[in-house]
Amino acid sequence: MRQAGRYLPEYRKVRRQVGGFLELCYTPDLAVEVTLQPIHRYGFDAAILFSDILVVPDALGQEVRFAEGEGPKLAPIRDVAGLAVLREEGVHDHLAPVYETVRRLSRELPPEVTLIGFAGAPWTVATYMVEGGSSRDFATTRAWSLADPEGFGRLIEIVTKATAAYLCRQVEAGAEALQLFDSWAGILPEDAFERWVIEPNSQIVSIVKQKYPQVPVIGFPRGAGVLYERYIDKTGVNAVSLDTTVPLAWAAERLQPKATLQGNLDPQVLLAGGEALERRAREIVTMLGNGPFIFNLGHGIIKETPPEHVARLLEVIRGNGRG
Amino acid sequence: MRQAGRYLPEYRKVRRQVGGFLELCYTPDLAVEVTLQPIHRYGFDAAILFSDILVVPDALGQEVRFAEGEGPKLAPIRDVAGLAVLREEGVHDHLAPVYETVRRLSRELPPEVTLIGFAGAPWTVATYMVEGGSSRDFATTRAWSLADPEGFGRLIEIVTKATAAYLCRQVEAGAEALQLFDSWAGILPEDAFERWVIEPNSQIVSIVKQKYPQVPVIGFPRGAGVLYERYIDKTGVNAVSLDTTVPLAWAAERLQPKATLQGNLDPQVLLAGGEALERRAREIVTMLGNGPFIFNLGHGIIKETPPEHVARLLEVIRGNGRG
Repeated sequence: MRQAGRYLPEYRKVRRQVGGFLELCYTPDLAVEVTLQPIHRYGFDAAILFSDILVVPDALGQEVRFAEGEGPKLAPIRDVAGLAVLREEGVHDHLAPVYETVRRLSRELPPEVTLIGFAGAPWTVATYMVEGGSSRDFATTRAWSLADPEGFGRLIEIVTKATAAYLCRQVEAGAEALQLFDSWAGILPEDAFERWVIEPNSQIVSIVKQKYPQVPVIGFPRGAGVLYERYIDKTGVNAVSLDTTVPLAWAAERLQPKATLQGNLDPQVLLAGGEALERRAREIVTMLGNGPFIFNLGHGIIKETPPEHVARLLEVIRGNGRG
Repeated sequence: MRQAGRYLPEYRKVRRQVGGFLELCYTPDLAVEVTLQPIHRYGFDAAILFSDILVVPDALGQEVRFAEGEGPKLAPIRDVAGLAVLREEGVHDHLAPVYETVRRLSRELPPEVTLIGFAGAPWTVATYMVEGGSSRDFATTRAWSLADPEGFGRLIEIVTKATAAYLCRQVEAGAEALQLFDSWAGILPEDAFERWVIEPNSQIVSIVKQKYPQVPVIGFPRGAGVLYERYIDKTGVNAVSLDTTVPLAWAAERLQPKATLQGNLDPQVLLAGGEALERRAREIVTMLGNGPFIFNLGHGIIKETPPEHVARLLEVIRGNGRG
């Protein structure tokens, strides 16, 4: 999950120095600074690049902006004709500041801190491209994908190709692991999940692994439920991020023999703090700590979270808890 | 799922005769008419009472209204002090028109058509009571339940008790099966799922079964994923409604030996119609039709759905499909 963010006062200070959110992602000085903030404050074992999944549609030429307090707004692409605005040339020039950020982070981070690059997975990125922003029901995206799977598949293809190249360039700039966020994977029935989640995720993993077989890829098909298992089997990811709802005993039994697990504390529990936080954090460590495991949240941190709750969580999972 | 609704022109005609949506639920003449509409049009095997899950908080004394095109608005209850507005006396007088509707339906429906009563499950109803309407993140409900589980548990208790009595009265009025909708079960981590979904659902099933052991209860913990299995094991429901994302082979293997399954066509696929609809409907019948199974949607019908898509779906699943 994004480690830096509005819950940190030092982040809010940097954020005020730029107008738009994308400007922050494209300004290496500032993106490096906010990526390092939680590492300096908490001493995490890994740092995740500060960026946004929508830099890819932005680089492809779609109009993307972040309205203050409203989330992203895109000029929606609703049919094959709409694909004409996308151009694959120049994508990496546009993304050069992100690569520069990765390069600098790679130099500035202590050697024991792993640098994780990331991208949005094609289905999730496509929902924003088609809906023109966040959505509750993804109705336009679903309707297009059902009425014209070939046309919608062309959009997925364009995003898949750009995303795979984007991730490879992050590795070239110094990323040591990669995460692929499919935040809206969980709304799809299994046939659509196969076609729009598993297929493009597999393609990306395969392209990256062909060039960089040693770089671990973490998949995050959020909300996949039972389909987490098929996702691991078919995509070839090394690890999966578990959303907050995945039951621990099931994950330990069915998933952990096949992949490293990451997750899955509920951000609402971190926000609440206190006994509930300590109890749940210990449960997660007890249930998943016997196999390959990375402690993490199951979703993004809530902006009202007191930073001291994060510090307390670290104490608990590092075994210095008082309780 | 609600069978009658805005996708039917005959429903929209009746809807225009009353001011508020709740007025429709509380006017037996009209509630009977709209319950029967889809039975007359399509000849379904079962009819589901036309009502709303929010009649229970309304009957308990919370202010509930439906703003046109905006969904429900409730005067939110955000802490233990807020529970003071709820009064358990008079609940069934308030709900008498619903019981009258069930009685009339029981007389008017052909004997071969099963009459299904229903209620919202306590967690889902509580989210509306606490948030004051629909929500994206259920932040207030989660925060209260984490900070003060005893106080929030008192709300759940009140709703559980009222709901169990409400369902028993529906049976007394002629309902032959009952469905319990826990539409927001799927957002909860497993410990909260145990406490706020499994426990109150079990209590309701147990109260109903004590009085009416022969009445089948269908649970719908929407989005429960892997936890569908535990839900069946622990609540004692006879059947579960599967949401659109539950994979069919898994459901057939893990769930169908323990419960009748109902579901799970995606309403987006029904809206789209055509080949995709026919293919998916046949897949569902093929995969789940060898055990106890009720064909249904995996979520509510979308109001733009052409009524002829529903007719075509019936042809396909009744084996008269042309394809």
